[in-house]
Amino acid sequence: MKQYSMGLDFGTNSVRCLLVDCANGREVATSVFNYPSGDHGVILDPKDPNLARQHPGDYFQGIRETVRSTLAETQRVEPGFDVGMVVGIGTDTTGSSPLPIDAKGTPLGLTNSDPAAQCWLWKDHTAHAEAAEITEKAWNEPYLSKCGGTYSSEWFWSKILHCARTAPDVFSRAHSWCELQDLIPAYLTGHMAPETMARGVCAAGHKGMFNSDWGGLPSEEFLSALDPRLGALRSRLYGQTLTSDQSAGTLSAERAAELGLPTSVKVAVGAMDAHLGAVGSGVKPGTLVKIMGTSTCDIMVGDSSTPDIPGVCGIVNGSVLSGMLGIEAGQSAVGDLFNWAAGKLAAGQSHDDLTADALKLAPGESGLLALDWNNGNRTILVDQRLSGLLIGQTLYSTPAEIYRTLIEATAFGALTIIRRIEEYGVEIDEIVCCGGIAEKSALAMQIYADVCNRPIKISRSAQTCALGSAMMGAVVGGAHPNVAAATAAMTGVKDSVFIPKPSSVATYSRLYALYMDLHDAFGKTSRNPDLHGLMKELLAIRDGAR
Amino acid sequence: MKQYSMGLDFGTNSVRCLLVDCANGREVATSVFNYPSGDHGVILDPKDPNLARQHPGDYFQGIRETVRSTLAETQRVEPGFDVGMVVGIGTDTTGSSPLPIDAKGTPLGLTNSDPAAQCWLWKDHTAHAEAAEITEKAWNEPYLSKCGGTYSSEWFWSKILHCARTAPDVFSRAHSWCELQDLIPAYLTGHMAPETMARGVCAAGHKGMFNSDWGGLPSEEFLSALDPRLGALRSRLYGQTLTSDQSAGTLSAERAAELGLPTSVKVAVGAMDAHLGAVGSGVKPGTLVKIMGTSTCDIMVGDSSTPDIPGVCGIVNGSVLSGMLGIEAGQSAVGDLFNWAAGKLAAGQSHDDLTADALKLAPGESGLLALDWNNGNRTILVDQRLSGLLIGQTLYSTPAEIYRTLIEATAFGALTIIRRIEEYGVEIDEIVCCGGIAEKSALAMQIYADVCNRPIKISRSAQTCALGSAMMGAVVGGAHPNVAAATAAMTGVKDSVFIPKPSSVATYSRLYALYMDLHDAFGKTSRNPDLHGLMKELLAIRDGAR
Repeated sequence: MKQYSMGLDFGTNSVRCLLVDCANGREVATSVFNYPSGDHGVILDPKDPNLARQHPGDYFQGIRETVRSTLAETQRVEPGFDVGMVVGIGTDTTGSSPLPIDAKGTPLGLTNSDPAAQCWLWKDHTAHAEAAEITEKAWNEPYLSKCGGTYSSEWFWSKILHCARTAPDVFSRAHSWCELQDLIPAYLTGHMAPETMARGVCAAGHKGMFNSDWGGLPSEEFLSALDPRLGALRSRLYGQTLTSDQSAGTLSAERAAELGLPTSVKVAVGAMDAHLGAVGSGVKPGTLVKIMGTSTCDIMVGDSSTPDIPGVCGIVNGSVLSGMLGIEAGQSAVGDLFNWAAGKLAAGQSHDDLTADALKLAPGESGLLALDWNNGNRTILVDQRLSGLLIGQTLYSTPAEIYRTLIEATAFGALTIIRRIEEYGVEIDEIVCCGGIAEKSALAMQIYADVCNRPIKISRSAQTCALGSAMMGAVVGGAHPNVAAATAAMTGVKDSVFIPKPSSVATYSRLYALYMDLHDAFGKTSRNPDLHGLMKELLAIRDGAR
Repeated sequence: MKQYSMGLDFGTNSVRCLLVDCANGREVATSVFNYPSGDHGVILDPKDPNLARQHPGDYFQGIRETVRSTLAETQRVEPGFDVGMVVGIGTDTTGSSPLPIDAKGTPLGLTNSDPAAQCWLWKDHTAHAEAAEITEKAWNEPYLSKCGGTYSSEWFWSKILHCARTAPDVFSRAHSWCELQDLIPAYLTGHMAPETMARGVCAAGHKGMFNSDWGGLPSEEFLSALDPRLGALRSRLYGQTLTSDQSAGTLSAERAAELGLPTSVKVAVGAMDAHLGAVGSGVKPGTLVKIMGTSTCDIMVGDSSTPDIPGVCGIVNGSVLSGMLGIEAGQSAVGDLFNWAAGKLAAGQSHDDLTADALKLAPGESGLLALDWNNGNRTILVDQRLSGLLIGQTLYSTPAEIYRTLIEATAFGALTIIRRIEEYGVEIDEIVCCGGIAEKSALAMQIYADVCNRPIKISRSAQTCALGSAMMGAVVGGAHPNVAAATAAMTGVKDSVFIPKPSSVATYSRLYALYMDLHDAFGKTSRNPDLHGLMKELLAIRDGAR
């Protein structure tokens, strides 16, 4: 009998459901639901660009809509399909996206419209002061050794501490908090109470400073030093974590009835989108998977000899594949930056038009250079309060030139991450890109190949996060004995590969030196480069390119 | 009998004719002619953003069209007017805008379409290498002491030398060269042959290194060291210069017939637009006149004790008012920068829309900061190869925020000039602005008042360059005994004055410190500021403003 599994991928603006054939990863049917709340699903504050929240009801509505729609589509296109053939569901979400819950695990945001009661979306940066405070107070603790040495405003404890301080009512009403990655399997299985909710190691380890080396979460003493209320919260959180090839339970009767699936369906422990995207892209030792969407996550796996790498977001055992260290790095704005250039800066020009014009430009020809920090710098500076920079403008600089320059800037940021990882002895044999930017922008992929001077492969699936989730569903549902077997059967890359062009490589090498001068001048480094000649070097590169 | 005079103002995109009542400066009639050639009158090279030329035929056509149209309009609106009441014509042009001429003074560009044969417009920067060479070779000569110590790619000798090197055919066909300011009176009077053409001290002194202290133009020896052909050219240029309150002759019979004016009309010696704009704004000791258009010129007059001021474009006896030192500084892109922001960057949004949104912003609220160098920096760095910079962008930054930031950047540039001039002992008692930006942008004027922390007055006339020219026409035509008398009778400022707002002054003072850090980091200064904290300080200012 055929076996199928489902993946549910909760992104920044929408949730996707994907149903695949467990034998070969063939994508049978899919459905997308755009979150109805806020601005494309994100609740904003016009007075505070740091704020980004989500209404939890959107997630539950999204499950209903997409699962039912995907099953209906499958019935239509797949002869012989029966819902009894669905063996498992895996899920992934953005993260760190914590939300306050009551004693039964119900999100406070379902009944309380206060922005603090909603889900604190990964890209919410309101808690920058708390992040700095955590970093400072952790200086003689081991907690930051696995997440690059700096705690981020995007992460679990910063956000909860900021809530305690700025919305004490909401904080006091919250019995506990959970990551969105854990809320979804809990909702599917019905094990929502905080003490029974299955907690994935992925967000716990990367964002929550959870590590068995120091007994799980940071000590109550440490947390109480930040705020006594945080210390008191610790016992109402969790003490154990699981990997995503483990089961969180089966579908609850209520969910099964609502979704039209049998209660036999196994639900995998949740993880963050990028980590399962890497699984869907076939991650293995030596492979860097870049999940490129609004932001980019870089995921690798390493054996136990992998050292701590300064500025890299996290090194967590089992966060990607069980038994291996998951290494996570990333860039805070990639597709978001291109969207800003098209939608805001160029007042609504289309990506297609800008791309067509940008394709006509040779590297360096515009004389422009940018820092890709409009949403801060996640790796390797770990500083969300950095901002964008554009240099080299003349009175003739065009939106397409700026658009290309911002793409190049993200590629320089990507190269900086690669260099840092390799500097610490982790070899990168291949780069596989997936996600919306990898799918849609041949311009960006060629620039990345040229800037990084390495071939860029593209994942076969256009929805690798959902595929990775479905693979975990297949494993917990028994269709494959383990993730390695699922990977061999269900993943692959496209035939066409982006190969570096030597002339572009040479120009980008010169531009990268200037990028690093700006990086070091404005970032938190010990170097104070002399920038007097930078504009002239850009002109020299430009004149050479013309 | 009533007396009238005319001013002809040759700008970057058009020529304007203004007919005024000599008794009180009342503006009776005016007419504008847009140059038909190139892009809004400017011949460009898509492969070289440094190139900007003009077709000389446009100027002559412009004289015919605007003078005849202005006279016709005057006949219509001014009862009792007769062309015999026109006593004089004054003229001003952009500069340094040199053009090659033959032995009769005819511009080569009239019959030769080579861009090198056209007028080399002030903002042509193709000759940056030659400018650097001239600066270097003049190190132990006095020639640069009056023009800030650095020769510019915008100026006379750089452009001629670049022509000799890159278009030797055109160079060898040119019997001589003249500034556009001198071509126009020559064309009106018929004294076009290089040896009879009246040369104004304004462009000669500010742009041609002409000074009686060293015997006029730079020595043949110095010029030959740059290029023997340049040395040989010297004897075919000029040895004497005149001030604009002197006559260049009367209208030639040919021009008089063509324009419908009597041959009795006196024509004043030409000068550059900004200098006569300052006259039209009532310049006197202690008054800084800012002529704000596509670029900005700052004009003052000083007595003979005025020292050399490093980085200031020029200090030339008689270039503004005879008997006083004319002091010129400037910014290479002001209106041009705003046009770039609206037309290119924001893909065609209107100035009105951007201004309306920018007016809603408090100083510092956007978190953005810019350098106003998209067209280089004329004062105080004298480096045309500097370029633009924008810093502090988030994913929410809007075109209106950037638009306001670029206006602020030009105001910071203006303050830098004011500080430099005062640092050398020249006191500034009042600031009078004129030109298109001063007329049209209350937003810009309030920002200038707040950034400079001084009241900003606006010249009564909306066309001060043409008025200043007409004042010179009135003086050479005998309607006033001298320019001081014409100034008292014919100029004034508007009643409404832009007053600094203390809260804005305080914010801009913090932003200016950051502007100067960027200025010194990327410009040619000895200071190498530490920029690590700059983005954070912008956020602190932003958070305070919100």
